[in-house]
Amino acid sequence: MKIDRDFHMMKGDDKFSYAKNSRIQRRAILATRPMVEKAVREMCIDLHPQSMVIVDLGCSFGGNTLLFVSEVITTICENRNSALEESTMEVQFFLNDLPGNDFNQIFQSLEQFEQLTKQHCACRGLQPPPYYVAALAGSFYTRLFPSNTVHFFHSSMSVMWLSQVPENLDGSMNEGNVHIGATTLPMVAKLYQNQFEKDFMQFLRMRCREIVHGGRMVLTVVGRKSKDVFDAGRTTTIFELLSQGLRTLVAEGRVEKEKLDSFNIPIYCPSVDELKQLVWQNNLLDISDIQLFEMDGNPMDDLEPIEGTAATQATGQSMSATLRAAIESLIASHFGDSILDELFTVFARNFTSYIESEVEKSTITVITLYLQAKH
Amino acid sequence: MKIDRDFHMMKGDDKFSYAKNSRIQRRAILATRPMVEKAVREMCIDLHPQSMVIVDLGCSFGGNTLLFVSEVITTICENRNSALEESTMEVQFFLNDLPGNDFNQIFQSLEQFEQLTKQHCACRGLQPPPYYVAALAGSFYTRLFPSNTVHFFHSSMSVMWLSQVPENLDGSMNEGNVHIGATTLPMVAKLYQNQFEKDFMQFLRMRCREIVHGGRMVLTVVGRKSKDVFDAGRTTTIFELLSQGLRTLVAEGRVEKEKLDSFNIPIYCPSVDELKQLVWQNNLLDISDIQLFEMDGNPMDDLEPIEGTAATQATGQSMSATLRAAIESLIASHFGDSILDELFTVFARNFTSYIESEVEKSTITVITLYLQAKH
Repeated sequence: MKIDRDFHMMKGDDKFSYAKNSRIQRRAILATRPMVEKAVREMCIDLHPQSMVIVDLGCSFGGNTLLFVSEVITTICENRNSALEESTMEVQFFLNDLPGNDFNQIFQSLEQFEQLTKQHCACRGLQPPPYYVAALAGSFYTRLFPSNTVHFFHSSMSVMWLSQVPENLDGSMNEGNVHIGATTLPMVAKLYQNQFEKDFMQFLRMRCREIVHGGRMVLTVVGRKSKDVFDAGRTTTIFELLSQGLRTLVAEGRVEKEKLDSFNIPIYCPSVDELKQLVWQNNLLDISDIQLFEMDGNPMDDLEPIEGTAATQATGQSMSATLRAAIESLIASHFGDSILDELFTVFARNFTSYIESEVEKSTITVITLYLQAKH
Repeated sequence: MKIDRDFHMMKGDDKFSYAKNSRIQRRAILATRPMVEKAVREMCIDLHPQSMVIVDLGCSFGGNTLLFVSEVITTICENRNSALEESTMEVQFFLNDLPGNDFNQIFQSLEQFEQLTKQHCACRGLQPPPYYVAALAGSFYTRLFPSNTVHFFHSSMSVMWLSQVPENLDGSMNEGNVHIGATTLPMVAKLYQNQFEKDFMQFLRMRCREIVHGGRMVLTVVGRKSKDVFDAGRTTTIFELLSQGLRTLVAEGRVEKEKLDSFNIPIYCPSVDELKQLVWQNNLLDISDIQLFEMDGNPMDDLEPIEGTAATQATGQSMSATLRAAIESLIASHFGDSILDELFTVFARNFTSYIESEVEKSTITVITLYLQAKH
């Protein structure tokens, strides 16, 4: 699979779609809202742009995409009648993702979104600024915008996706694992780390060309609390359970062992220190703030605490659907469509057993970098 | 049907798709190429934009959409090494159409387009400027861009589409016709004319807010050579034959008469004088050039002259497919899907008879306005 062409979240709105299985991603956007608001507000005060360009990188589609747009509009609304008198400011949003993303879905949902936004603002006595929503397909590891044209970059739960499976990670080097697992060789973990460094530096280089002096960037990634590259908490668990599910299919003769051994998921969960180091190396950005959130990793509604067997089973199924919505295109491209249902059923069962035996509340670590372009 | 939400050219790439049936539209882009090139070149000389914003309104999808992008890139390439030294200039394209357009198809074809463009330029010793292609859904009768941000607007074969069926054109006022036909009342023709005036003035008002001082606009519409609103040449013939096809279906009991009587196609073909008058009324634009092209209206390849029965039949079918690709969504929304095949078969037959009896070479009239923003 060519990641930058073919990878995508699952389309449509059926039970395995990303639209129906992106509550964790939604929670990350909600959790980091104060940092986004602060960055937008401060950027408006510093730059007074007449026309502000705001970009969401890895926007995907469905409710989460427009949730970010809505947050920004609300922030601008609330600050419009202040001393700044930014009453004539207009906002141009660019929603970016890979070409396989369902941009048609976004465009078709815009009319309803605009009506709701207008109502929502009117209820609070506010008026939204004139805004325009464009879409742009392409990998964020390439140039996407003309030089010095973007005021604000946002990316939530996307930059941990690598541009490719780590370079030189071939054949059966990571036998029986699909990611950095307990039996992964340190050398393989290092290849993952190297690929992230290379990709993230490239990401920052591209954005630094595109962002205006004083522009802001808020990046949220699934990261690691631990310094140990083998311990990315809940994310490590999920990939261990996915490897285990594939090993079950190998044992049943449904999947060839070589197929499993040669499959590696192009994700890397960086620590706070790793991110800081790479930003400092880049040298064109100031870190205004970096925060590590520990988010409830339960994909079910936050209001329903996990209790009883039925609830843990539902959580297992829900986590399986969340994972499937994100990685089905990768799995199907490598192993074929035929194993999808079985694999994710096994995963749901394994995940249910895991949470039944777990004492601690499940969390995933989300790191948000709040950057300012110095140029 | 809500035109600004639901109307679209036929998607996909099957035999009735727009992608397969848009040769006439392609020919219009090729015919007006010199005016586009001149406008782009002159705008570059006047404004020296570091980053140039170029918009195609009503871009549709398929080969025609990227043909325009390709033309502009070639023009810039060819003028880059001149005294202007615009070697650092970057170009941001925005492709605009209604939300029902297949933007996913455009994004998915971009990678191949970029490779071909690079090769094509390299063969001629040229290097394309850095360019970025975004998409923007929305009616061009609304605001689409922040103020003073666009350098060049292009629209080919789109602005003759009205924002709606003419206001106050209700019930059976245009009995037996789907457009301005021989039996249409002058009052109905006037409603069409009024709607176009209102829409085109709105179109120009919106664009004048968005375009930078000195920016250019090249608009190509299917128009009228004659002053007589009842005589839009080939276009009048096409709609007369479509009305005739629907009357046949009414006679067969396949379509209710009231359904036909209440159906009107939201297109108006303006004359050169009408366009001039409206631009002058707007008062913010200079007409640099206005040309009337008479294009071969044969949707078959220009290289195959119509000879013999098989050829005229093929032409009839081809014109039927061209019309269907453009208006199927309108017809299906008003009459239902079930009549589509029969209606367009009848139309093909009627069109074949028409060209068999015709002595003159068929033409359609295309008017290109080349405008300059004075502000």
